[in-house]
Amino acid sequence: MAVSGAVAAVVENREWYIACYAPKGIPNSDHLKLRTVSFSLSENSIPNGNVAVQILYISIDPYLRTQLSGLHDGLSLPQLPLGQVIRANAIGKVIRSKDTNFSEGDIVTTYMFPVAEFCFMPINWLQKINPTIGITLPDYLSCLGVPGLTAWVGIEKIGKVKEGSNVYISAAAGGVGIIAGQLAKLKGCRVIGSVGSDEKAKLLKEECGYDDAFNYRVETDYDAALNKYFPNGIDFYFDNVGGKMLEAVLNHVNQGARISLCGMISEYNKVWTEREGVRNLLNVVGKEVIMQGFMLGSYVNYFEDFRKEMEVHLKEGKVKSKHKIYNGIENFLESLTSLFSSSNVGKVILQVTP
Amino acid sequence: MAVSGAVAAVVENREWYIACYAPKGIPNSDHLKLRTVSFSLSENSIPNGNVAVQILYISIDPYLRTQLSGLHDGLSLPQLPLGQVIRANAIGKVIRSKDTNFSEGDIVTTYMFPVAEFCFMPINWLQKINPTIGITLPDYLSCLGVPGLTAWVGIEKIGKVKEGSNVYISAAAGGVGIIAGQLAKLKGCRVIGSVGSDEKAKLLKEECGYDDAFNYRVETDYDAALNKYFPNGIDFYFDNVGGKMLEAVLNHVNQGARISLCGMISEYNKVWTEREGVRNLLNVVGKEVIMQGFMLGSYVNYFEDFRKEMEVHLKEGKVKSKHKIYNGIENFLESLTSLFSSSNVGKVILQVTP
Repeated sequence: MAVSGAVAAVVENREWYIACYAPKGIPNSDHLKLRTVSFSLSENSIPNGNVAVQILYISIDPYLRTQLSGLHDGLSLPQLPLGQVIRANAIGKVIRSKDTNFSEGDIVTTYMFPVAEFCFMPINWLQKINPTIGITLPDYLSCLGVPGLTAWVGIEKIGKVKEGSNVYISAAAGGVGIIAGQLAKLKGCRVIGSVGSDEKAKLLKEECGYDDAFNYRVETDYDAALNKYFPNGIDFYFDNVGGKMLEAVLNHVNQGARISLCGMISEYNKVWTEREGVRNLLNVVGKEVIMQGFMLGSYVNYFEDFRKEMEVHLKEGKVKSKHKIYNGIENFLESLTSLFSSSNVGKVILQVTP
Repeated sequence: MAVSGAVAAVVENREWYIACYAPKGIPNSDHLKLRTVSFSLSENSIPNGNVAVQILYISIDPYLRTQLSGLHDGLSLPQLPLGQVIRANAIGKVIRSKDTNFSEGDIVTTYMFPVAEFCFMPINWLQKINPTIGITLPDYLSCLGVPGLTAWVGIEKIGKVKEGSNVYISAAAGGVGIIAGQLAKLKGCRVIGSVGSDEKAKLLKEECGYDDAFNYRVETDYDAALNKYFPNGIDFYFDNVGGKMLEAVLNHVNQGARISLCGMISEYNKVWTEREGVRNLLNVVGKEVIMQGFMLGSYVNYFEDFRKEMEVHLKEGKVKSKHKIYNGIENFLESLTSLFSSSNVGKVILQVTP
């Protein structure tokens, strides 16, 4: 429910909760359900140390799916208790505050917003956003949010890429990949991406500075494709998909290559015993490869370094953002499952409040 | 042929060469053949800058097999040209020399000895050995040779183990594993090994200081075994086998665990597309694991550091060597294939000359 003008004392608040686990397959409306609850915004209802927030934009990221399987999964994230509202990185607007540090109208963000229209939120979980010229609110969830920091960590801290490095990025038009490729280009690398449509490949080349890009649905022999696009081998692979693509890459790595692993979108809808096995790990020995996994939580201390750097890139137009915006809280499930269909370009964001 | 007393001018020299490639399976006498060639030891026959050497001991290592497939393999080692004599790390005795720096009777070693009874060898490829009290010639091929340096690099440079680290070593009674475990114990780690017989497990516990060891042929549910032996998870895995064991380990790694990959004995007799796929690499993400492959050639600059340290350990009895000695050049093939049968304890060495 949208709130305009003066905030009502009680609103109808729609929120998404997990009704049953989806151990495999794409989650559907059996697993994730929307419910409407009455939500009192009266001053007395606001817990001490909290503010009332109307949620504006929610970041839709693949890791959310891994909290819905009900199984201990590779990412080791806690599974959501049944009946509980899902939580995600989001941006909201303070609509009622008893705290002198937060005013009505303040724009705030945290990783722990519920996938809902309204909520109370502890003020010490919130960071304020002062939108700068050229940086839109969705940019704070993409370039300056989870995917931006993920891309930065992979390129800077894991890949340690250098000028001239041959860099390959899978899911390159996705939220992470589209930023990672641009950061690698700024480092002077040769950057090739793989994507799920010709349109995306065109976009990466024409708008995002990629040296080349290919459609893995057309060039289905990954080994031949990598041979073609990497005649001098791969120095750094930013893996976003896992499975068969990771295996193909291991046949094309250079001596001392690095591989960052931060998620494997091709594998999230399978239980681990049904996932694609990687059969050629012996190449990791022969080419002395370093494969390193990372979770963003371990790199939050770099956030300020990252933010300063990325804000400059955004203001100077050196990194361009691409967003796929879904509208309305009722479309959360659709926006989440779209991540697995290769149908989006750029970061998927759900706009909750216009 | 053994040479005793004065060296004959011409000897019959037996040598092993590759007759045809073995892309998969255990190599047999179709692939590796023994031939006898006349070998002149007269002074005029010795090339300038060479000495004549009688080979005493040959180090039998799994990587040798990977040079016989005729395929570009994971280890990226060059394939032996058909008809060529195999080369290996070995120890020999100088039996004729025109060089003032080498005398008859000098004991020498190099990684490039032919698998033969006699050879000429460029003097700048040779290192002299001055056997010290407590260090036997076979020790120079085990603790102080390829497997010793491999174990040291894995523990020191890749694993970076610390006091109290939970360390798991597969093929733990093999040439590399038996040393790696002892080095990890000297660092104060808790060390568990897996082996192919109860007898080997007993040996590791009673003679090599392992905290525990299990027989993977009896405890065939690796996942259950690792659960039992690593109630607090694995901090460092020294992988010598690959395949299913590596996969099982990835279900038991701790946050920030390290895995060193230096060879995968379970996989060498298969072409890569038939190898066991590792399906749970998503754990590398969730637990932020670093998997690092290495080839010994990249660490030869550490050899002196390693040698000094290992010589002290050997003299003080802190590292014990175990050797399985095969006798006679004619048994090279048997000694090589024995590596894949889990039948040996410790380092496999072929004694060419008594």
